[in-house]
Amino acid sequence: MFDVVAFDADDTLWFSEDSFRKYETQFVDTVAPYVPVGVDIKAALIATERKNIDAYGYGVKSFGLSSMEAAITLSNGEIPSYELQKILHGVREHLTEPVRLFDGVAEVLAEVSSQFRTILITKGDLAHQTRKVETSGISHHFDHVEIVLEKDPATYAHVLKSLDINPKSFCMVGNSMKSDILPVISIGGFGVYVPYEILWELDHAEHPTANADRYVELETLSLVPEWLAQQHK
Amino acid sequence: MFDVVAFDADDTLWFSEDSFRKYETQFVDTVAPYVPVGVDIKAALIATERKNIDAYGYGVKSFGLSSMEAAITLSNGEIPSYELQKILHGVREHLTEPVRLFDGVAEVLAEVSSQFRTILITKGDLAHQTRKVETSGISHHFDHVEIVLEKDPATYAHVLKSLDINPKSFCMVGNSMKSDILPVISIGGFGVYVPYEILWELDHAEHPTANADRYVELETLSLVPEWLAQQHK
Repeated sequence: MFDVVAFDADDTLWFSEDSFRKYETQFVDTVAPYVPVGVDIKAALIATERKNIDAYGYGVKSFGLSSMEAAITLSNGEIPSYELQKILHGVREHLTEPVRLFDGVAEVLAEVSSQFRTILITKGDLAHQTRKVETSGISHHFDHVEIVLEKDPATYAHVLKSLDINPKSFCMVGNSMKSDILPVISIGGFGVYVPYEILWELDHAEHPTANADRYVELETLSLVPEWLAQQHK
Repeated sequence: MFDVVAFDADDTLWFSEDSFRKYETQFVDTVAPYVPVGVDIKAALIATERKNIDAYGYGVKSFGLSSMEAAITLSNGEIPSYELQKILHGVREHLTEPVRLFDGVAEVLAEVSSQFRTILITKGDLAHQTRKVETSGISHHFDHVEIVLEKDPATYAHVLKSLDINPKSFCMVGNSMKSDILPVISIGGFGVYVPYEILWELDHAEHPTANADRYVELETLSLVPEWLAQQHK
Protein backbone atom coordinates (compact mmCIF):
# COMPACT_ATOMS: atom_id res chain seq x y z
CA MET A 1 0.00 0.00 0.00
CA PHE A 2 2.79 2.46 0.91
CA ASP A 3 6.17 2.90 -0.75
CA VAL A 4 7.39 5.70 1.46
CA VAL A 5 6.92 6.43 5.16
CA ALA A 6 7.83 9.90 6.40
CA PHE A 7 8.23 11.00 9.99
CA ASP A 8 7.93 14.40 11.58
CA ALA A 9 10.69 15.06 14.16
CA ASP A 10 9.79 17.53 16.95
CA ASP A 11 7.37 15.90 19.42
CA THR A 12 7.07 12.86 17.16
CA LEU A 13 10.57 11.38 17.53
CA TRP A 14 11.99 13.58 20.28
CA PHE A 15 10.92 16.04 22.95
CA SER A 16 10.68 19.65 21.79
CA GLU A 17 7.62 21.48 23.00
CA ASP A 18 8.36 20.85 26.68
CA SER A 19 11.57 22.90 26.34
CA PHE A 20 9.63 25.77 24.80
CA ARG A 21 7.25 25.59 27.78
CA LYS A 22 10.21 25.64 30.16
CA TYR A 23 11.69 28.78 28.57
CA GLU A 24 8.22 30.34 28.36
CA THR A 25 7.91 29.88 32.12
CA GLN A 26 11.39 31.34 32.66
CA PHE A 27 10.32 34.29 30.52
CA VAL A 28 7.22 34.93 32.60
CA ASP A 29 9.28 34.73 35.82
CA THR A 30 11.92 37.10 34.43
CA VAL A 31 9.60 39.85 33.22
CA ALA A 32 6.82 39.63 35.83
CA PRO A 33 8.53 42.00 38.33
CA TYR A 34 8.56 44.75 35.67
CA VAL A 35 4.97 44.35 34.46
CA PRO A 36 1.77 45.59 36.14
CA VAL A 37 -0.31 42.96 37.92
CA GLY A 38 -3.17 41.84 35.70
CA VAL A 39 -1.19 41.66 32.46
CA ASP A 40 -1.27 38.23 30.77
CA ILE A 41 2.44 37.88 30.04
CA LYS A 42 2.25 34.48 28.39
CA ALA A 43 -0.59 35.54 26.10
CA ALA A 44 1.38 38.63 25.07
CA LEU A 45 4.42 36.49 24.25
CA ILE A 46 2.35 34.16 22.09
CA ALA A 47 0.74 37.11 20.33
CA THR A 48 4.20 38.55 19.64
CA GLU A 49 5.34 35.22 18.18
CA ARG A 50 2.22 35.10 16.02
CA LYS A 51 2.84 38.64 14.74
CA ASN A 52 6.43 37.79 13.84
CA ILE A 53 6.02 34.35 12.29
CA ASP A 54 5.86 35.65 8.71
CA ALA A 55 9.12 37.54 9.07
CA TYR A 56 10.94 35.21 11.46
CA GLY A 57 9.74 31.70 10.69
CA TYR A 58 9.68 28.93 13.31
CA GLY A 59 12.25 27.96 15.87
CA VAL A 60 14.22 28.87 18.94
CA LYS A 61 15.92 31.97 17.51
CA SER A 62 12.53 33.37 16.50
CA PHE A 63 11.18 32.54 19.96
CA GLY A 64 14.19 34.32 21.48
CA LEU A 65 13.77 37.48 19.42
CA SER A 66 10.02 37.58 20.14
CA SER A 67 10.76 37.06 23.83
CA MET A 68 13.14 40.04 23.91
CA GLU A 69 10.59 42.19 22.10
CA ALA A 70 7.74 41.16 24.40
CA ALA A 71 9.89 41.75 27.51
CA ILE A 72 10.74 45.28 26.43
CA THR A 73 7.21 46.12 25.31
CA LEU A 74 5.48 44.64 28.36
CA SER A 75 7.83 46.48 30.73
CA ASN A 76 7.44 49.70 28.77
CA GLY A 77 11.22 49.69 28.23
CA GLU A 78 11.89 49.45 31.96
CA ILE A 79 13.28 45.93 32.19
CA PRO A 80 17.07 46.16 32.76
CA SER A 81 19.21 44.70 30.03
CA TYR A 82 20.95 42.31 32.44
CA GLU A 83 17.55 40.61 32.81
CA LEU A 84 17.37 40.29 29.03
CA GLN A 85 20.75 38.59 29.17
CA LYS A 86 18.97 35.70 30.91
CA ILE A 87 16.70 35.29 27.91
CA LEU A 88 19.73 35.23 25.59
CA HIS A 89 21.41 32.63 27.76
CA GLY A 90 18.23 30.58 27.50
CA VAL A 91 18.30 30.79 23.70
CA ARG A 92 21.83 29.40 23.50
CA GLU A 93 21.10 26.72 26.11
CA HIS A 94 17.91 25.75 24.27
CA LEU A 95 19.68 25.57 20.88
CA THR A 96 22.47 23.37 22.21
CA GLU A 97 20.57 21.07 24.57
CA PRO A 98 20.90 17.36 23.82
CA VAL A 99 18.23 15.56 21.79
CA ARG A 100 15.98 13.43 24.01
CA LEU A 101 14.36 10.66 21.97
CA PHE A 102 10.94 9.32 22.90
CA ASP A 103 10.91 5.75 24.19
CA GLY A 104 11.13 3.13 21.48
CA VAL A 105 11.91 5.53 18.64
CA ALA A 106 15.13 3.81 17.59
CA GLU A 107 13.42 0.41 17.42
CA VAL A 108 10.47 1.79 15.43
CA LEU A 109 12.76 3.47 12.90
CA ALA A 110 14.93 0.37 12.56
CA GLU A 111 11.86 -1.71 11.75
CA VAL A 112 10.15 0.78 9.45
CA SER A 113 13.32 1.64 7.53
CA SER A 114 13.99 -2.05 6.90
CA GLN A 115 10.64 -2.28 5.09
CA PHE A 116 10.05 1.13 3.52
CA ARG A 117 11.86 4.04 1.97
CA THR A 118 11.93 6.23 5.07
CA ILE A 119 12.31 10.01 5.19
CA LEU A 120 12.23 12.79 7.75
CA ILE A 121 10.26 15.97 7.08
CA THR A 122 10.59 18.64 9.72
CA LYS A 123 9.85 22.35 9.76
CA GLY A 124 11.81 24.95 11.60
CA ASP A 125 15.20 26.57 11.77
CA LEU A 126 17.81 25.07 9.43
CA ALA A 127 20.73 25.35 11.88
CA HIS A 128 18.87 23.94 14.88
CA GLN A 129 17.04 21.16 13.06
CA THR A 130 20.24 20.07 11.32
CA ARG A 131 22.07 19.94 14.65
CA LYS A 132 19.30 17.84 16.17
CA VAL A 133 19.17 15.39 13.26
CA GLU A 134 22.96 15.01 13.16
CA THR A 135 23.33 14.43 16.90
CA SER A 136 20.21 12.27 17.34
CA GLY A 137 21.91 8.97 16.55
CA ILE A 138 19.00 7.94 14.35
CA SER A 139 19.74 9.87 11.17
CA HIS A 140 21.12 6.76 9.43
CA HIS A 141 17.60 5.31 9.31
CA PHE A 142 16.49 8.02 6.88
CA ASP A 143 17.03 7.85 3.13
CA HIS A 144 16.42 11.57 3.00
CA VAL A 145 16.00 14.50 5.41
CA GLU A 146 13.98 17.53 4.37
CA ILE A 147 13.88 20.68 6.52
CA VAL A 148 11.09 22.96 5.34
CA LEU A 149 9.84 26.41 6.19
CA GLU A 150 6.15 25.55 6.35
CA LYS A 151 4.23 22.29 6.21
CA ASP A 152 1.45 23.18 3.83
CA PRO A 153 0.04 21.22 0.87
CA ALA A 154 2.24 23.07 -1.64
CA THR A 155 5.39 22.21 0.31
CA TYR A 156 4.49 18.52 0.61
CA ALA A 157 3.62 18.40 -3.09
CA HIS A 158 6.96 20.00 -3.96
CA VAL A 159 8.98 17.67 -1.72
CA LEU A 160 7.21 14.55 -3.01
CA LYS A 161 7.68 15.60 -6.63
CA SER A 162 11.38 16.31 -6.13
CA LEU A 163 11.81 12.86 -4.54
CA ASP A 164 9.68 11.18 -7.23
CA ILE A 165 7.08 9.93 -4.73
CA ASN A 166 3.46 9.29 -5.65
CA PRO A 167 1.28 10.87 -2.94
CA LYS A 168 -1.01 7.82 -3.02
CA SER A 169 1.83 5.63 -1.77
CA PHE A 170 3.00 8.16 0.82
CA CYS A 171 2.35 7.89 4.53
CA MET A 172 3.24 10.71 6.95
CA VAL A 173 3.58 10.05 10.68
CA GLY A 174 3.39 13.00 13.04
CA ASN A 175 1.96 14.67 16.12
CA SER A 176 0.41 17.72 14.48
CA MET A 177 -2.98 17.54 12.79
CA LYS A 178 -2.28 20.91 11.16
CA SER A 179 1.26 20.23 9.91
CA ASP A 180 1.50 16.48 9.45
CA ILE A 181 -1.98 15.18 8.68
CA LEU A 182 -4.33 17.71 7.03
CA PRO A 183 -1.94 18.92 4.29
CA VAL A 184 -0.88 15.35 3.46
CA ILE A 185 -4.39 13.98 3.08
CA SER A 186 -5.33 17.06 1.04
CA ILE A 187 -2.79 16.07 -1.63
CA GLY A 188 -3.88 12.42 -1.64
CA GLY A 189 -1.52 10.93 0.91
CA PHE A 190 -2.18 9.15 4.19
CA GLY A 191 -1.60 10.44 7.71
CA VAL A 192 -0.80 8.55 10.90
CA TYR A 193 -1.61 10.88 13.75
CA VAL A 194 0.30 10.17 16.98
CA PRO A 195 -0.65 12.99 19.33
CA TYR A 196 1.77 14.26 21.97
CA GLU A 197 0.45 15.66 25.21
CA ILE A 198 1.75 19.18 24.55
CA LEU A 199 0.93 21.02 21.33
CA TRP A 200 2.09 24.54 20.51
CA GLU A 201 -0.85 26.92 20.33
CA LEU A 202 0.11 28.12 16.86
CA ASP A 203 0.07 24.54 15.58
CA HIS A 204 -3.47 23.69 16.54
CA ALA A 205 -6.11 22.41 14.10
CA GLU A 206 -9.35 20.48 14.32
CA HIS A 207 -9.62 16.90 13.14
CA PRO A 208 -10.50 16.61 9.46
CA THR A 209 -14.09 16.46 8.32
CA ALA A 210 -13.24 15.61 4.69
CA ASN A 211 -11.13 12.59 3.71
CA ALA A 212 -11.36 11.27 7.26
CA ASP A 213 -10.71 7.77 5.89
CA ARG A 214 -7.23 8.84 4.88
CA TYR A 215 -5.83 9.05 8.38
CA VAL A 216 -5.59 6.97 11.50
CA GLU A 217 -4.86 7.91 15.09
CA LEU A 218 -2.45 5.72 17.04
CA GLU A 219 -1.73 6.13 20.72
CA THR A 220 2.04 5.67 20.53
CA LEU A 221 4.75 5.54 17.89
CA SER A 222 5.52 1.94 18.85
CA LEU A 223 2.20 0.91 17.23
CA VAL A 224 3.27 2.25 13.83
CA PRO A 225 5.24 -0.80 12.48
CA GLU A 226 2.42 -3.24 13.20
CA TRP A 227 -0.16 -0.90 11.72
CA LEU A 228 1.95 -0.49 8.56
CA ALA A 229 2.33 -4.27 8.28
CA GLN A 230 -1.45 -4.72 8.50
CA GLN A 231 -2.00 -2.35 5.58
CA HIS A 232 -0.04 -4.69 3.34
CA LYS A 233 -2.16 -7.72 4.13
CA MET B 1 31.41 21.20 -21.07
CA PHE B 2 28.83 22.00 -18.37
CA ASP B 3 25.38 20.47 -17.85
CA VAL B 4 24.42 22.50 -14.81
CA VAL B 5 25.14 26.07 -13.79
CA ALA B 6 24.48 27.03 -10.18
CA PHE B 7 24.36 30.52 -8.74
CA ASP B 8 24.93 31.79 -5.24
CA ALA B 9 22.37 34.44 -4.20
CA ASP B 10 23.56 36.95 -1.55
CA ASP B 11 26.02 39.43 -3.11
CA THR B 12 26.04 37.43 -6.34
CA LEU B 13 22.49 38.12 -7.58
CA TRP B 14 21.33 40.73 -5.07
CA PHE B 15 22.69 43.10 -2.46
CA SER B 16 23.05 41.62 1.01
CA GLU B 17 26.28 42.50 2.77
CA ASP B 18 25.71 46.25 2.50
CA SER B 19 22.60 45.90 4.69
CA PHE B 20 24.60 44.01 7.31
CA ARG B 21 27.11 46.86 7.25
CA LYS B 22 24.31 49.37 7.67
CA TYR B 23 22.91 47.59 10.74
CA GLU B 24 26.44 47.07 12.08
CA THR B 25 26.94 50.84 11.94
CA GLN B 26 23.57 51.42 13.63
CA PHE B 27 24.66 48.96 16.31
CA VAL B 28 27.91 50.83 16.96
CA ASP B 29 26.04 54.15 17.15
CA THR B 30 23.44 52.69 19.53
CA VAL B 31 25.83 51.12 22.04
CA ALA B 32 28.74 53.59 21.87
CA PRO B 33 27.30 55.95 24.54
CA TYR B 34 27.26 53.07 27.03
CA VAL B 35 30.75 51.71 26.34
CA PRO B 36 34.12 53.09 27.52
CA VAL B 37 36.15 55.00 24.94
CA GLY B 38 38.80 52.74 23.44
CA VAL B 39 36.65 49.62 23.13
CA ASP B 40 36.44 48.27 19.56
CA ILE B 41 32.68 47.74 19.38
CA LYS B 42 32.59 46.40 15.85
CA ALA B 43 35.35 43.87 16.54
CA ALA B 44 33.49 42.68 19.64
CA LEU B 45 30.30 42.21 17.61
CA ILE B 46 32.12 40.17 14.97
CA ALA B 47 33.79 38.07 17.68
CA THR B 48 30.36 37.43 19.25
CA GLU B 49 28.97 36.34 15.87
CA ARG B 50 31.96 34.04 15.38
CA LYS B 51 31.47 32.49 18.82
CA ASN B 52 27.79 31.85 18.12
CA ILE B 53 27.90 30.60 14.55
CA ASP B 54 27.95 26.91 15.51
CA ALA B 55 24.82 27.26 17.62
CA TYR B 56 23.02 29.97 15.62
CA GLY B 57 23.99 29.44 11.98
CA TYR B 58 24.04 32.28 9.45
CA GLY B 59 21.58 35.07 8.85
CA VAL B 60 19.86 38.15 10.14
CA LYS B 61 18.24 36.54 13.21
CA SER B 62 21.64 35.22 14.32
CA PHE B 63 23.12 38.65 13.71
CA GLY B 64 20.31 40.18 15.78
CA LEU B 65 20.77 37.82 18.72
CA SER B 66 24.56 38.33 18.68
CA SER B 67 23.99 42.10 18.51
CA MET B 68 21.80 42.02 21.62
CA GLU B 69 24.32 39.90 23.45
CA ALA B 70 27.25 42.13 22.47
CA ALA B 71 25.32 45.28 23.44
CA ILE B 72 24.59 43.94 26.92
CA THR B 73 28.08 42.57 27.44
CA LEU B 74 29.91 45.65 26.14
CA SER B 75 27.80 47.97 28.30
CA ASN B 76 28.23 45.69 31.31
CA GLY B 77 24.43 45.36 31.48
CA GLU B 78 23.99 49.15 31.61
CA ILE B 79 22.40 49.76 28.19
CA PRO B 80 18.69 50.51 28.70
CA SER B 81 16.32 48.04 27.13
CA TYR B 82 14.60 50.74 25.06
CA GLU B 83 17.91 51.08 23.21
CA LEU B 84 17.87 47.34 22.56
CA GLN B 85 14.42 47.80 21.06
CA LYS B 86 16.16 49.71 18.24
CA ILE B 87 18.22 46.63 17.46
CA LEU B 88 15.05 44.49 17.37
CA HIS B 89 13.36 46.96 15.05
CA GLY B 90 16.42 46.71 12.82
CA VAL B 91 16.15 42.91 12.71
CA ARG B 92 12.55 43.04 11.51
CA GLU B 93 13.29 45.84 9.02
CA HIS B 94 16.31 43.92 7.73
CA LEU B 95 14.34 40.67 7.34
CA THR B 96 11.54 42.33 5.44
CA GLU B 97 13.44 44.79 3.24
CA PRO B 98 12.84 44.37 -0.49
CA VAL B 99 15.29 42.39 -2.61
CA ARG B 100 17.56 44.67 -4.67
CA LEU B 101 18.92 42.80 -7.68
CA PHE B 102 22.31 43.66 -9.13
CA ASP B 103 22.23 45.26 -12.58
CA GLY B 104 21.71 42.80 -15.41
CA VAL B 105 20.90 39.81 -13.21
CA ALA B 106 17.54 39.07 -14.84
CA GLU B 107 19.07 39.13 -18.33
CA VAL B 108 21.95 36.89 -17.31
CA LEU B 109 19.61 34.33 -15.73
CA ALA B 110 17.26 34.38 -18.71
CA GLU B 111 20.16 33.60 -21.04
CA VAL B 112 21.87 31.00 -18.85
CA SER B 113 18.66 29.18 -17.97
CA SER B 114 17.75 28.93 -21.67
CA GLN B 115 20.98 26.97 -22.26
CA PHE B 116 21.65 25.07 -19.02
CA ARG B 117 19.90 23.36 -16.16
CA THR B 118 20.13 26.25 -13.69
CA ILE B 119 19.95 26.05 -9.91
CA LEU B 120 20.33 28.35 -6.93
CA ILE B 121 22.42 27.28 -3.93
CA THR B 122 22.38 29.70 -1.03
CA LYS B 123 23.32 29.36 2.61
CA GLY B 124 21.62 31.06 5.50
CA ASP B 125 18.33 31.27 7.29
CA LEU B 126 15.51 29.23 5.76
CA ALA B 127 12.76 31.80 6.40
CA HIS B 128 14.71 34.81 5.15
CA GLN B 129 16.30 33.14 2.12
CA THR B 130 12.94 31.68 1.09
CA ARG B 131 11.32 35.09 1.35
CA LYS B 132 14.04 36.65 -0.79
CA VAL B 133 13.88 33.96 -3.47
CA GLU B 134 10.08 34.10 -3.62
CA THR B 135 9.88 37.89 -3.87
CA SER B 136 12.90 38.35 -6.15
CA GLY B 137 10.98 37.96 -9.40
CA ILE B 138 13.71 35.70 -10.80
CA SER B 139 12.88 32.40 -9.10
CA HIS B 140 11.25 31.03 -12.27
CA HIS B 141 14.68 30.85 -13.92
CA PHE B 142 15.77 28.13 -11.50
CA ASP B 143 15.03 24.45 -11.97
CA HIS B 144 15.82 23.95 -8.31
CA VAL B 145 16.52 26.06 -5.22
CA GLU B 146 18.64 24.64 -2.41
CA ILE B 147 19.01 26.48 0.90
CA VAL B 148 21.86 24.97 2.90
CA LEU B 149 23.35 25.45 6.34
CA GLU B 150 27.00 25.49 5.30
CA LYS B 151 28.71 25.54 1.92
CA ASP B 152 31.41 22.94 2.44
CA PRO B 153 32.53 20.10 0.14
CA ALA B 154 30.27 17.55 1.90
CA THR B 155 27.21 19.74 1.39
CA TYR B 156 27.93 20.33 -2.29
CA ALA B 157 28.59 16.60 -2.79
CA HIS B 158 25.27 15.77 -1.08
CA VAL B 159 23.28 18.32 -3.10
CA LEU B 160 24.81 17.23 -6.41
CA LYS B 161 24.19 13.56 -5.64
CA SER B 162 20.56 14.18 -4.69
CA LEU B 163 20.06 16.10 -7.96
CA ASP B 164 21.92 13.45 -9.97
CA ILE B 165 24.58 15.93 -11.15
CA ASN B 166 28.12 14.87 -12.08
CA PRO B 167 30.54 17.31 -10.39
CA LYS B 168 32.66 17.39 -13.55
CA SER B 169 29.79 18.96 -15.47
CA PHE B 170 28.90 21.37 -12.66
CA CYS B 171 29.74 25.07 -12.65
CA MET B 172 29.14 27.27 -9.57
CA VAL B 173 28.96 31.06 -9.89
CA GLY B 174 29.46 33.13 -6.75
CA ASN B 175 31.16 35.96 -4.91
CA SER B 176 32.78 33.97 -2.11
CA MET B 177 36.04 32.14 -2.64
CA LYS B 178 35.43 30.26 0.61
CA SER B 179 31.79 29.25 0.04
CA ASP B 180 31.33 29.15 -3.73
CA ILE B 181 34.70 28.30 -5.30
CA LEU B 182 37.06 26.31 -3.05
CA PRO B 183 34.58 23.60 -1.95
CA VAL B 184 33.28 23.16 -5.51
CA ILE B 185 36.69 22.71 -7.10
CA SER B 186 37.68 20.37 -4.27
CA ILE B 187 34.94 17.93 -5.35
CA GLY B 188 35.84 18.19 -9.03
CA GLY B 189 33.54 20.99 -10.15
CA PHE B 190 34.30 24.36 -11.70
CA GLY B 191 33.98 27.78 -10.05
CA VAL B 192 33.26 31.17 -11.61
CA TYR B 193 34.37 33.74 -9.09
CA VAL B 194 32.61 37.11 -9.41
CA PRO B 195 33.85 39.16 -6.45
CA TYR B 196 31.65 41.79 -4.84
CA GLU B 197 33.24 44.83 -3.24
CA ILE B 198 32.09 43.92 0.27
CA LEU B 199 32.80 40.51 1.78
CA TRP B 200 31.78 39.44 5.27
CA GLU B 201 34.84 38.89 7.45
CA LEU B 202 33.73 35.39 8.39
CA ASP B 203 33.49 34.45 4.72
CA HIS B 204 37.04 35.27 3.77
CA ALA B 205 39.47 32.82 2.13
CA GLU B 206 42.61 33.05 0.04
CA HIS B 207 42.63 32.18 -3.64
CA PRO B 208 43.28 28.49 -4.31
CA THR B 209 46.80 27.19 -4.79
CA ALA B 210 45.72 23.70 -5.89
CA ASN B 211 43.37 23.11 -8.85
CA ALA B 212 43.73 26.75 -9.87
CA ASP B 213 42.82 25.74 -13.42
CA ARG B 214 39.33 24.80 -12.23
CA TYR B 215 38.16 28.34 -11.62
CA VAL B 216 38.00 31.65 -13.41
CA GLU B 217 37.51 35.18 -12.11
CA LEU B 218 35.13 37.44 -14.00
CA GLU B 219 34.65 41.10 -13.24
CA THR B 220 30.86 41.15 -13.49
CA LEU B 221 27.99 38.69 -13.70
CA SER B 222 27.10 40.00 -17.15
CA LEU B 223 30.25 38.32 -18.51
CA VAL B 224 29.05 34.86 -17.40
CA PRO B 225 26.87 33.90 -20.41
CA GLU B 226 29.58 34.69 -22.96
CA TRP B 227 32.19 32.87 -20.91
CA LEU B 228 29.94 29.82 -20.67
CA ALA B 229 29.34 29.89 -24.43
CA GLN B 230 33.10 29.95 -25.07
CA GLN B 231 33.62 26.80 -23.01
CA HIS B 232 31.42 24.88 -25.45
CA LYS B 233 33.41 25.88 -28.52
